[in-house]
Amino acid sequence: MSIRVSIVGASGYVGGEILRILSLHSHVEIVSLTSRQYAGEYVHKAHPNMKGIINAKFTGDDPLKASSNADVVFLALPHKASVKVVPKLMETGIRIIDMSADFRLKSPESYVRWYGYEHPYPDLLKKFVYGLAELHREELKGAKYVSAPGCMASASIIGLAPLVKKYAPVGPIIVDAKIASSGAGGKPSPSTHFSERYGVIRPYKPTGHRHTGEIEQELSIVANKKINVAMSAHAVNMVRGILTTSHLMTDSGAKLPDIWKAYREFYTSEPFVRFMMDKTGIYRFPDPKVVIGSNFADVGFDIDPYINRIVVLTAIDNLMKGAAGSAVQSMNLMFGLNEKEGLNMAALHPV
Amino acid sequence: MSIRVSIVGASGYVGGEILRILSLHSHVEIVSLTSRQYAGEYVHKAHPNMKGIINAKFTGDDPLKASSNADVVFLALPHKASVKVVPKLMETGIRIIDMSADFRLKSPESYVRWYGYEHPYPDLLKKFVYGLAELHREELKGAKYVSAPGCMASASIIGLAPLVKKYAPVGPIIVDAKIASSGAGGKPSPSTHFSERYGVIRPYKPTGHRHTGEIEQELSIVANKKINVAMSAHAVNMVRGILTTSHLMTDSGAKLPDIWKAYREFYTSEPFVRFMMDKTGIYRFPDPKVVIGSNFADVGFDIDPYINRIVVLTAIDNLMKGAAGSAVQSMNLMFGLNEKEGLNMAALHPV
Amino acid sequence: MSIRVSIVGASGYVGGEILRILSLHSHVEIVSLTSRQYAGEYVHKAHPNMKGIINAKFTGDDPLKASSNADVVFLALPHKASVKVVPKLMETGIRIIDMSADFRLKSPESYVRWYGYEHPYPDLLKKFVYGLAELHREELKGAKYVSAPGCMASASIIGLAPLVKKYAPVGPIIVDAKIASSGAGGKPSPSTHFSERYGVIRPYKPTGHRHTGEIEQELSIVANKKINVAMSAHAVNMVRGILTTSHLMTDSGAKLPDIWKAYREFYTSEPFVRFMMDKTGIYRFPDPKVVIGSNFADVGFDIDPYINRIVVLTAIDNLMKGAAGSAVQSMNLMFGLNEKEGLNMAALHPV
Amino acid sequence: MSIRVSIVGASGYVGGEILRILSLHSHVEIVSLTSRQYAGEYVHKAHPNMKGIINAKFTGDDPLKASSNADVVFLALPHKASVKVVPKLMETGIRIIDMSADFRLKSPESYVRWYGYEHPYPDLLKKFVYGLAELHREELKGAKYVSAPGCMASASIIGLAPLVKKYAPVGPIIVDAKIASSGAGGKPSPSTHFSERYGVIRPYKPTGHRHTGEIEQELSIVANKKINVAMSAHAVNMVRGILTTSHLMTDSGAKLPDIWKAYREFYTSEPFVRFMMDKTGIYRFPDPKVVIGSNFADVGFDIDPYINRIVVLTAIDNLMKGAAGSAVQSMNLMFGLNEKEGLNMAALHPV
Repeated sequence: MSIRVSIVGASGYVGGEILRILSLHSHVEIVSLTSRQYAGEYVHKAHPNMKGIINAKFTGDDPLKASSNADVVFLALPHKASVKVVPKLMETGIRIIDMSADFRLKSPESYVRWYGYEHPYPDLLKKFVYGLAELHREELKGAKYVSAPGCMASASIIGLAPLVKKYAPVGPIIVDAKIASSGAGGKPSPSTHFSERYGVIRPYKPTGHRHTGEIEQELSIVANKKINVAMSAHAVNMVRGILTTSHLMTDSGAKLPDIWKAYREFYTSEPFVRFMMDKTGIYRFPDPKVVIGSNFADVGFDIDPYINRIVVLTAIDNLMKGAAGSAVQSMNLMFGLNEKEGLNMAALHPV
Repeated sequence: MSIRVSIVGASGYVGGEILRILSLHSHVEIVSLTSRQYAGEYVHKAHPNMKGIINAKFTGDDPLKASSNADVVFLALPHKASVKVVPKLMETGIRIIDMSADFRLKSPESYVRWYGYEHPYPDLLKKFVYGLAELHREELKGAKYVSAPGCMASASIIGLAPLVKKYAPVGPIIVDAKIASSGAGGKPSPSTHFSERYGVIRPYKPTGHRHTGEIEQELSIVANKKINVAMSAHAVNMVRGILTTSHLMTDSGAKLPDIWKAYREFYTSEPFVRFMMDKTGIYRFPDPKVVIGSNFADVGFDIDPYINRIVVLTAIDNLMKGAAGSAVQSMNLMFGLNEKEGLNMAALHPV
Repeated sequence: MSIRVSIVGASGYVGGEILRILSLHSHVEIVSLTSRQYAGEYVHKAHPNMKGIINAKFTGDDPLKASSNADVVFLALPHKASVKVVPKLMETGIRIIDMSADFRLKSPESYVRWYGYEHPYPDLLKKFVYGLAELHREELKGAKYVSAPGCMASASIIGLAPLVKKYAPVGPIIVDAKIASSGAGGKPSPSTHFSERYGVIRPYKPTGHRHTGEIEQELSIVANKKINVAMSAHAVNMVRGILTTSHLMTDSGAKLPDIWKAYREFYTSEPFVRFMMDKTGIYRFPDPKVVIGSNFADVGFDIDPYINRIVVLTAIDNLMKGAAGSAVQSMNLMFGLNEKEGLNMAALHPV
Repeated sequence: MSIRVSIVGASGYVGGEILRILSLHSHVEIVSLTSRQYAGEYVHKAHPNMKGIINAKFTGDDPLKASSNADVVFLALPHKASVKVVPKLMETGIRIIDMSADFRLKSPESYVRWYGYEHPYPDLLKKFVYGLAELHREELKGAKYVSAPGCMASASIIGLAPLVKKYAPVGPIIVDAKIASSGAGGKPSPSTHFSERYGVIRPYKPTGHRHTGEIEQELSIVANKKINVAMSAHAVNMVRGILTTSHLMTDSGAKLPDIWKAYREFYTSEPFVRFMMDKTGIYRFPDPKVVIGSNFADVGFDIDPYINRIVVLTAIDNLMKGAAGSAVQSMNLMFGLNEKEGLNMAALHPV
């Protein structure tokens, strides 16, 4: 069996990472790759790593034409661009995996609050499954429309879901996120100029980060009550990787073994969640360094000896578990394939 | 006038940075540099940057001998080593600036909690001034004994002091700290091996970091009530620099102009505190990238639009404002010199 | 069909990379992993990236025992350690892929010159095939004993072979090599301490680098006359990757199209050699950045408009094409498998 | 005494570095800073490191107006822009230090060869002194017009001058240069986009680099015969620093002590040349890591044991000795000041 795949917006970093994964996937045929900027050029002009691997060219086709003979389309478009093409694509019966934020939130009000705009198709929001297999596996099986989570949202939610299910936070959960440069895409700007971007710990969004909306939505579902999240996002000196450090205050009196139990129960045999908890060695807690290139989400936690704080750490590769990897994992579920197909590569180490 | 200076433990990173500063100081004469590891060798064997600047050699002299004809001694020794030599040094009448943690905490109980040991000379603790000019300038003027603050403590305290003076936190203040490698010193280990240390965001101390004790102590003095702090420390991919992101919950209803006022009142004409708050440009908030090599502490803040959170950001060079720079600033005050002497260098940029 | 593989010295970086590759190889079964340092521990203690991929433990078995039920053994041992175990392993009939330098040179005199010691088993040297498929593919097919090339040697030879076959150099060929930290292995030392190693361009071996011997040997075979090479090696600020810049003086009057022809003829349908030559874009010439994690060797060249110089550039991942990748490629040839098996992963980009 | 200084094009990296130096200079008064892009804005908008150090604003004044009440003007303008304003500035009697390439070459033909254009004012070329104090100190004393050398030219020339004075090279000298990102300026582009620029060893100019012309010019003067240079330039993963590795073939039979003698004779008591030659330790040879922020040029060399090759290594900070530092050194000589004034800062280490 071979799934015919179209990637719209294939010259960006997320599009390139989907391609990299699919080049190792046994049940996929790429039928179309579009890019406005690179139309007519070889894939390796945008993705030099794919030279010698994929010999195709980008087309400038519109999404409808590009997807006309595909079974599924990955929409790797900027925010507010997906929403313009999705309704028409839906009419064609194609399955859709949208990488943008346009269908992540279930509530139209949330778009107003976090994105500052009225969603033009509020009725479509509920048709999309939030593409995080760890929370929505059953819905993803056979789903037609999937919205891929935000990268920092993926990390935060995977780390916090088992906790909020069991423990009620006191006050908002603080999510202190550190993210590499590729999360900001491939477009040059003064803030991404190497001489200015190298060596920073730049708090580019201390409050009000848009991913907060998704995190609150998903954690509230798991907790079955409203969970408040207060996020701060920092750009750090690397190209790939996210670490989220979440600080949750609780008066539950939970001890480490209780928390271990919560995590083990929640993530029984999850294929891509690893617990990074060790008493010795260099990698005692999650560190993005050891997930780079893989689809793993590494989770660890600690409790404060004197204060009722639980610290949760999650490390992912923002382009993999934070974007393309999770999306292909969802595709595998949508089409009834082995969930790990194409995603069983180890991280590079050291790198 | 020329102050005669001795540096004990001068081959470490902090000792080297004190040397770098003093090489630009107009009123200082170095009379002794000790190092067990480098005894008999030229300074540039440990500090290659000082070649052509300082032509001295390290001696293996014990602290007492090394300081016998000095006016002031910088003790750049490991924790628990300073405490062994300080009592004898005190008998000689020399002034002491201790870079270790051995005299930072005022309460013997705090040493038990944060350092796990009974302080052998609890009576001496109160003889030391906590060497942060921004909080203790008047005490430092003419002080005989100064204890230099911890690097992450310096950053956190400078950022939070104006806030806790005015606003009561709800729950503990979360301090999420990011620190460069030089803070861990110059001794090789598996965790500092380049191939393993490069590219990390390593949460090496999610809870229980020792600097927490200092931060609580100093903030409680400023607030005139007990302040609780919950810190998490991360090692990041750079050699110099600290960013602390502090999350303070409050039900004060404070708006941005109120907070601005609190900061401006607290830091009127502080020579080394800069407010990094801009609506445009790359450096809208503090970023260690623009303090490297200088003694500045850059401070910024933001409030959460929906939750009663104030986020405070402080960026320092851990070897400067976080160690050697602050120590020389204290020395200048102790001897009645211009507080900025030797410290008026700009940061390198870009670097 | 499944080849039973033993890896001796499996906890080092090269051993870990062989493991990473073999975890994606369809025709391999790992039967033994030895490590003196990590005996009895899980693989992920040394290779955290393999957590969730391989669940085995290292043993402390000696090489003979470890390889007793294997078809092939990878010896990832330090130089001068392989030579001690190879003769006994040979008696068992097992195939051997030696990652050390102990069997790379054909001439015992060369060991005296480049390694400063008398080779204890000079008769065995000719039994080993130099494991560079691009030069020795036919010999590798069915070979029993293979010696994997040095990392910088691989890059230099692949870049220069087509040239020396066609053009006689005037004077020695200058090879200016830049190498990442993982080439130096996993053992901490003052020179690999992060604070000292970060940001360097360290000319650690301006003359006399040992890989020179291999390069001269292999290029002389191709050229059918003695080729002299003068190498300088620099450590640079990254964990993976090599760029060799080779400067070859010639009075041949060769033009760019002639050189293109030489390369195309020499490397017809080589699976892992890519020509990186473009008039536009960022990656006009080889750059290790776009081979990281893959087995590709990227080759490019330029001629000096005024001087008879040809500049040849080769970029590889030192742990892949420079070590583990080439070794698995050799194994595939030894066992009659598809040469690309396990090696068809793209590089990570961006990373 | 106070020299009144104007900086034209003061918002670029070179302009910023001149400012940083002059902020520590005892005999200078800044009278004008121009920037087209930042006209009307505070200096710290372009140079965030200068916040709290210099409180001035950029003006949009044309160079003539900006320099009307200055004693000397630093022209930090792009190539081909300086040449347009210099003739008019000359009429005003002001002294000029030009940072561009417009007046570096003495021969109009060289501009055709290396820059591809006819120099519009060939008669003016000889009025400029090539601003490298190590070679032209006597001419610089009292000079009116100085042309600051190219960054890679400075490194190459300082390293090679003593050699070519004494030994005749066989064939061209190969200069393999490695340069950090700040040498390319502050303007964003696809090739300086962080995600694409991080971790590279990018051979951006394997042949034909423009600085070659200067190097040949200056070395030929020293050698008193035509010296040929073949240069290859690589961009590496850092923001500041240059290492040039020069390979010189010679049949002189020179031994290491002979070469030592050549260097010591040539650089007797040079204030900013250091010999980095050690048998032990991490920094046995020059490494840009230990000059960052300082005006030092570190020089080292080695000879090949089997081939008549001398390898010369020079490390500088491209913005200091490679640009602003050398320019201020020239200014000091022009005005009869202490040559080291403003330049006696040590490098940062570690950084």
